[in-house]
Amino acid sequence: MKTPSLLDINEAHGRISSTIHRTPLLSNEAINKITGANVLFKCENFQRTGSFKLRGGTNAIFSLSEKERANGIATHSSGNHAQAVAYAASKAGSKSFIVMPENAPEVKKKAVKGYGGIISFCKPLESERIRLCNEIIEREGAIFISPFEHPDIIAGQATCSKEIFEEDQSLDYILCPVGGGGLSAGTALSVEHFSPKTKFIIAEPEMANDTAKSFRKGSIVPISNPNTIADGLKVTVGDLNFKIIKRIAEDVITVTEEQIVDAMRIVWERMKIIIEPSSAVPVAVLMNNQGLFRGKRIAIIITGGNVDIGKLPF
Amino acid sequence: MKTPSLLDINEAHGRISSTIHRTPLLSNEAINKITGANVLFKCENFQRTGSFKLRGGTNAIFSLSEKERANGIATHSSGNHAQAVAYAASKAGSKSFIVMPENAPEVKKKAVKGYGGIISFCKPLESERIRLCNEIIEREGAIFISPFEHPDIIAGQATCSKEIFEEDQSLDYILCPVGGGGLSAGTALSVEHFSPKTKFIIAEPEMANDTAKSFRKGSIVPISNPNTIADGLKVTVGDLNFKIIKRIAEDVITVTEEQIVDAMRIVWERMKIIIEPSSAVPVAVLMNNQGLFRGKRIAIIITGGNVDIGKLPF
Repeated sequence: MKTPSLLDINEAHGRISSTIHRTPLLSNEAINKITGANVLFKCENFQRTGSFKLRGGTNAIFSLSEKERANGIATHSSGNHAQAVAYAASKAGSKSFIVMPENAPEVKKKAVKGYGGIISFCKPLESERIRLCNEIIEREGAIFISPFEHPDIIAGQATCSKEIFEEDQSLDYILCPVGGGGLSAGTALSVEHFSPKTKFIIAEPEMANDTAKSFRKGSIVPISNPNTIADGLKVTVGDLNFKIIKRIAEDVITVTEEQIVDAMRIVWERMKIIIEPSSAVPVAVLMNNQGLFRGKRIAIIITGGNVDIGKLPF
Repeated sequence: MKTPSLLDINEAHGRISSTIHRTPLLSNEAINKITGANVLFKCENFQRTGSFKLRGGTNAIFSLSEKERANGIATHSSGNHAQAVAYAASKAGSKSFIVMPENAPEVKKKAVKGYGGIISFCKPLESERIRLCNEIIEREGAIFISPFEHPDIIAGQATCSKEIFEEDQSLDYILCPVGGGGLSAGTALSVEHFSPKTKFIIAEPEMANDTAKSFRKGSIVPISNPNTIADGLKVTVGDLNFKIIKRIAEDVITVTEEQIVDAMRIVWERMKIIIEPSSAVPVAVLMNNQGLFRGKRIAIIITGGNVDIGKLPF
């Protein structure tokens, strides 16, 4: 698999721009006061399907030929990627087969169904998800769309920070959270191509610190079944993504569960917007490293807003 | 007390425009799909201090002479008006004395203090609040700012719908909730002056239906200590406000507590924005009267986003 080029990112943006929202870049006086920094929030929680995942999913699906997607799209996901694939597939006029763990939140199951996704439930184990997804691909002749490890996904996610840099050329830092690393790799490439003076900091839960460990060691240190409230960040970073991250990112900084919940609460209370725990991770990094960020101009990618309202940590 | 004129509303807007945010008018595909209507949400939850109350409070305080406000501003409020007065007073360079019930949410006490308000706590009874506030006015020589019953307050609140009509001249309906009626009276006057073709519907909790009863009867039917989750809407509508509402509003429609909570949840889940229960009341009216609103273009004023995150009804 190849690292996406500048042309790939620009083409991805053109390909998806009529399907995605160009989300707003918001600021908040109270949070600037608390942090002593000048912070811009790229609000992908307002993105269609409620997260940035629609960018990569749409780019990957729209990049397929009609023949390739004739028998439908398949993926496995408990969360945002599932909704993104179901939505983008329906826009492309394709069927989508989504493997979801049986314990996924009702609201997410309903959203996937609402976008026309055909759901198959499995036991909540990574191995079960993959097994069932492969079975469906075999049976239906559907094509697999990875949640994070593919050049088309990375190029799609890169459009998020591309939009940020189109609106602001004076950023000292850009921060985003890391799970499988599709967004982090895309953000790294956007920094390189569109704003090389900006330093890219990756935010990760201490409880799922595979990328931080891998970054220190220089090669991937896998993690299995980590326990963090940031449910989107439990997977180990992918190979291609890590290669890109390692070359471009300035640092990977971790935060505790308590710091994540505090940051989430402050954003909810002060900005009156709903962000999911994964999105609170970079906010927590900002709030707990004020020496580094004071007086700086910073963009934070708010990755999504798909939270189970009935199960809040407050 | 006189009904504010067109000139009063225009002057109010000029007076407050550098202190308030011009809040966005948002739409949401999912909610349009659910309701079959074309709905625009005026997001005063993103207003400074978290609610529309800043508009009236700022207009009232900025309309005072330096001499009138030399000894400070006084008011009593458990909620949004308290924060608005403390903030606007500090912008005017005045002290503010805020009487709050001792059981007011911590987050609101903290916000009032953060804006420089001097808080006095009282027992959670309307009569106690008024008694203590009068005592402070006597002792300090401070001037009282009413939460809803004053021409300057009404003219300030009218600027919210004025902004809506400046952006959209094709609205069939505009909806807002009613408590003391400052916002409702202001909205009614804006309809009359800026968009007379638009019908104005007032939304009220069934459990605090004094305005609905008063509207039917043609004179005020007071209510005491109603029990509704929409804590901003518990007071009885004021005389001047009711006179204006009665003349201009199309109807007052009530909704149940369950309908309010459902509407609040749908806005949180679909729009990813935090709205307080009072703001969910007009959304509930929209969702439960689809025959009336289907196919129409509708603006709803989202009055605020000050919710106690630790005590949610979900």
